[in-house]
Amino acid sequence: MTKSPPLDLSPAARQVAALKPFQPGAPAVTVSATIKSRSPDGYAAAVGELTAAFGNRLVTSQAVRQQHGNTVTWIANQPPDAVVFPQSTEDVQQIVRICSKHGMPIIPYGVGSSLEGHVNAPQGGVSIDFRDMNSLLKVHAEDLDCVVQAGITRKTLNEQLRDSGLFFPIDPGADASLGGMASTRASGTNAVRYGTLKDNVIAMKVVLANGEVIDTARRAKKTSAGYDLTRLMIGSEGTLGIITELTLKLSGIPEAISGGTCPFPSVEAACNAAIMTIQAGIPVARIELLDALQVRAINLGSKLSLPETTLLFLEFHGTEASVKEQSERFNEISQELGGGPFVWTTRAEERTKMWEARHNAAFSNFTLRPGAAMIATDVCVPISRLAECVTATQADIAASRIIAPIVGHIGDGNFHLTMLIDLGDADEVERAEGLSGRLVERALSMDGTCTAEHGVGQGKMKYMQAEHGAAAVAAMRAIKQALDPQNILNPGKMIAQG
Amino acid sequence: MTKSPPLDLSPAARQVAALKPFQPGAPAVTVSATIKSRSPDGYAAAVGELTAAFGNRLVTSQAVRQQHGNTVTWIANQPPDAVVFPQSTEDVQQIVRICSKHGMPIIPYGVGSSLEGHVNAPQGGVSIDFRDMNSLLKVHAEDLDCVVQAGITRKTLNEQLRDSGLFFPIDPGADASLGGMASTRASGTNAVRYGTLKDNVIAMKVVLANGEVIDTARRAKKTSAGYDLTRLMIGSEGTLGIITELTLKLSGIPEAISGGTCPFPSVEAACNAAIMTIQAGIPVARIELLDALQVRAINLGSKLSLPETTLLFLEFHGTEASVKEQSERFNEISQELGGGPFVWTTRAEERTKMWEARHNAAFSNFTLRPGAAMIATDVCVPISRLAECVTATQADIAASRIIAPIVGHIGDGNFHLTMLIDLGDADEVERAEGLSGRLVERALSMDGTCTAEHGVGQGKMKYMQAEHGAAAVAAMRAIKQALDPQNILNPGKMIAQG
Repeated sequence: MTKSPPLDLSPAARQVAALKPFQPGAPAVTVSATIKSRSPDGYAAAVGELTAAFGNRLVTSQAVRQQHGNTVTWIANQPPDAVVFPQSTEDVQQIVRICSKHGMPIIPYGVGSSLEGHVNAPQGGVSIDFRDMNSLLKVHAEDLDCVVQAGITRKTLNEQLRDSGLFFPIDPGADASLGGMASTRASGTNAVRYGTLKDNVIAMKVVLANGEVIDTARRAKKTSAGYDLTRLMIGSEGTLGIITELTLKLSGIPEAISGGTCPFPSVEAACNAAIMTIQAGIPVARIELLDALQVRAINLGSKLSLPETTLLFLEFHGTEASVKEQSERFNEISQELGGGPFVWTTRAEERTKMWEARHNAAFSNFTLRPGAAMIATDVCVPISRLAECVTATQADIAASRIIAPIVGHIGDGNFHLTMLIDLGDADEVERAEGLSGRLVERALSMDGTCTAEHGVGQGKMKYMQAEHGAAAVAAMRAIKQALDPQNILNPGKMIAQG
Repeated sequence: MTKSPPLDLSPAARQVAALKPFQPGAPAVTVSATIKSRSPDGYAAAVGELTAAFGNRLVTSQAVRQQHGNTVTWIANQPPDAVVFPQSTEDVQQIVRICSKHGMPIIPYGVGSSLEGHVNAPQGGVSIDFRDMNSLLKVHAEDLDCVVQAGITRKTLNEQLRDSGLFFPIDPGADASLGGMASTRASGTNAVRYGTLKDNVIAMKVVLANGEVIDTARRAKKTSAGYDLTRLMIGSEGTLGIITELTLKLSGIPEAISGGTCPFPSVEAACNAAIMTIQAGIPVARIELLDALQVRAINLGSKLSLPETTLLFLEFHGTEASVKEQSERFNEISQELGGGPFVWTTRAEERTKMWEARHNAAFSNFTLRPGAAMIATDVCVPISRLAECVTATQADIAASRIIAPIVGHIGDGNFHLTMLIDLGDADEVERAEGLSGRLVERALSMDGTCTAEHGVGQGKMKYMQAEHGAAAVAAMRAIKQALDPQNILNPGKMIAQG
């Protein structure tokens, strides 16, 4: 972590940030050895051609550039040289061809909810904002799939799908765009049952660095025909191609849903409950861990009165009979482990209130320290190591004297740390950096990953070698070099040298 | 399809095939423009170094080479120059380094059950037989995963897992090796519920063409850290790296299983039952279509007396209560569509007998035409197009005057055509080739794929451009070139030029 000031999420602070003077010439994080040299003349020529082609859909105003150069991240603002708003795959193709001609970096932009500096422009360039490519193009109800443009957000998609009886289950905290979710291999609370983005995309339309458009696969559910370009593009953070359309796997809206909360005497007991539930084959749809501090934040933020102890939020999907059976079996497991009672309901209003509180957890955290900046990070370990990892992290939080609630998608072994920091206190910032770094080291030492769903961006580049080893990172770089020899696609991110 | 004689699977014919004179110098399917030139001196030097390193684990006898140059396929025998039997990842690494030095092709070999000429050696080279790397290395019961060597077969794995209460659900027809299954992105009857190989591998150890060993991922269930090397390697048919170990996702053996058969008046009614079942959210574990001719073959081969009409074989996994509920709901659906009755049971013996008959379907087909050669192919389409595709294919079979039962994993839109051919009849062979080609064209015209689970190998290379388009195939070739610049990893397969 650098000492760059994190972005404070309070509305007032965001306004101030938006007014910060434009800082031109932010230093490039990296330039690959093979890159065509970037030149101011090339940049100017690219912007000129884009302006000629896109008219007022190409914006170079300082406010808009800054807005696209820094999202929900602690990394300093790095604005692009221009922002363009395409309306079709052909538009994106034209943008890429112009940028390729002039060696101009291209940064795809969804809603700007990424947490690791994915959309910043460390080498300048053009931000492609998918705001206007937000259509649900087709629903194939019999095939349980749909085709969307990359800019549609998950909530909009599910609103438009509602009448079909189908839904797209992946739910990261933000109302992110589907293109952005695919780019970071996003997941969320439903992943324990429905998988992550990688499991719920059938095919994508992608513009490659050479301006060619490919379909990564056909609409068939399975294929053995060739390299899995779909999965290669998912999680590649815009560094291998620009996603313009996605064919998504949909799920039926469950006939019945039960949900509730269950207290536990310890993190270990709660994690053991998750392990036993999954081992028993109970197809739990959501199983979320909140530590006592996170429950307190939710109580304050959402005006609830949940017991301020280690708590699981659960949900079961199925028929009326099966969700009852699943809920009862979970209750037995929780009691075996000294937890419970599991208070559950199938009533929609109560469940919705509970899950809204869970989804608003991040914002509720401000109640713990009004005016603080929020730095979020996530790791994932094998579930057998989860209790140990969370407990050691709680001890480290206490020793570091940082306010940092924990919330976890524990069916997957994934948890988040949300640090509330006073950025004016250099000593505190240093303690937070240490805590965050040790969290990653702890996860890696347990055969875990430095990020389960936030992605690498710029923030976690420094851990790629430790996680994957030099040979695997070299293989990733060889793939990047093969598909983007000019290094124009979101340069300076993920596996950039340096 | 070429006019090469297909391999007859009858034991007598196999013996004859094994005695066929060795045909040296089979023409290379392709040599990439960038390849180091292959030279007889280089091949001899590689075999010499391998012999020095591996002693009697390096075999050059004609019989063994031929056995490794032609498996369950219609493609002519193309034997490697030598076969080597490694015992560790380090052995494989040494083999790759020696072969790389001398520009010698390397062909990974599991049990030789591939159907499209994946293990043939069109350019000669060294076949790496994983027979001796067949250990279950670790079971992490709490994490529902295990680590295996690439040569273990799926049945051996499940026998060794039995006491853990866990199983690996992917079941292609053959008792294939896990390395081979990963290489072809295999699936089988359980895929509708449990997914394919791509969904059930967490990480792999892979030896790259440069001799470096990588782990494609950590053991955490989810990650957003970097390109998905796991999924890139799965289905790459040994052309991007040599898989030596796999970390597999396991599932709990279901508490209860119900299964049975259900007749339908038409393929369309049966496909509609599959669509309605899946749309209703019934988590069917297996839903297999057999056409009347396939049922007849099974009746003859397995001494059963199933109704010789369009038939579904089904299985439901869950608790006693839930499998009963699922079975009853399916029965209602089948009756709505004029099918049924759905005769089901939870008794293990009866279910086992039924599924053994299903798994032996391919061999039962010989009862329809004793002495014939068997040519198997598979395609996959969106399930909404499946009835149309199967029905049109049945009409084409009749018009082509070919004996060809159909069996399908219809929850995925995937079906197999098994043609029983008299190879001495040139006219019949030509009609079979036409039928097989039109099947692929039909699938592609319905947004389907030329292969759902058999893979490309040499047999379906000619369809790659039609399926993916030139730009996507070029992207695949760029990746191949980046990771294997010498083109030593299973050359002449999948996306080879030519």
